[in-house]
Amino acid sequence: MTITTLCYIEQNERYLMLHRTKKKNDINEGKWIAIGGHCENGESPEECAKREVREETGLKVGSLRFRGIVTFFSKPDYTEYMCIFTTKEFEGCLHDCNEGDLMWVEKDRINSLNVWEGDRIFNRLIMKDDQPFFSLKLTYDKDKLTEAVLDDKDIL
Amino acid sequence: MTITTLCYIEQNERYLMLHRTKKKNDINEGKWIAIGGHCENGESPEECAKREVREETGLKVGSLRFRGIVTFFSKPDYTEYMCIFTTKEFEGCLHDCNEGDLMWVEKDRINSLNVWEGDRIFNRLIMKDDQPFFSLKLTYDKDKLTEAVLDDKDIL
Repeated sequence: MTITTLCYIEQNERYLMLHRTKKKNDINEGKWIAIGGHCENGESPEECAKREVREETGLKVGSLRFRGIVTFFSKPDYTEYMCIFTTKEFEGCLHDCNEGDLMWVEKDRINSLNVWEGDRIFNRLIMKDDQPFFSLKLTYDKDKLTEAVLDDKDIL
Repeated sequence: MTITTLCYIEQNERYLMLHRTKKKNDINEGKWIAIGGHCENGESPEECAKREVREETGLKVGSLRFRGIVTFFSKPDYTEYMCIFTTKEFEGCLHDCNEGDLMWVEKDRINSLNVWEGDRIFNRLIMKDDQPFFSLKLTYDKDKLTEAVLDDKDIL
């Protein structure tokens, strides 16, 4: 089991997205995702998100909004819990990222990029400002999304 | 790292609490806590909470309200993420629990029981119906709470 975070940094109706092109043996190779990574010993989800943003982008983010948790289950035995944050507060200058190319992408365009099938679901959720905290479970069979359960309701 | 859930079942202004008296080598021995346990492979936090309630109490709970996440850090290297739920929806009859004694306790009395120092903080949070989703980090040095950070603000 693993705990990760994902942070959507917003500016001028755009999100900072990472095109994963540089990391070796990257399960996300070629995909576009927001900024994040694994929680380290003793880190709260917020601390992890802030560290990952700093390491991958050079930006220092301010207050975060905790939007939801995604349970990824990939049969037979991969389980990941991902905490999702959004923020409009940051300072500093973007630097290159060793995991891929960073780009500001218009919010309504992110789901037309090469993203995981299940990511489209939470990308839509976080774009809605009045969306309450959500818990989403995504079950994959290899690359195929086979089940999506939002707040205990099947939505696929 | 470990992921757990905790579920407060409410009825008539009381919570169902468990007095941990029966489990061997239980870090919670003698303490009063709500119902919960470890997430298993492929379980969402809700699925885990429902299973734990069923196993420990015999009750079947309905819809859950996801109230917050607690990061427990015990130096040097124990990190646990606990998802907290509350619910008023359940059916079935209480059975004995092999981890301790179950008891319905008036809400305003739970913090006068033998509970962990940090538990008092989230016990207060979940009792407030209008409390938004929270992220609380509790740092312990053995039994002593040394740091409490609520939504990125130090509160100890």
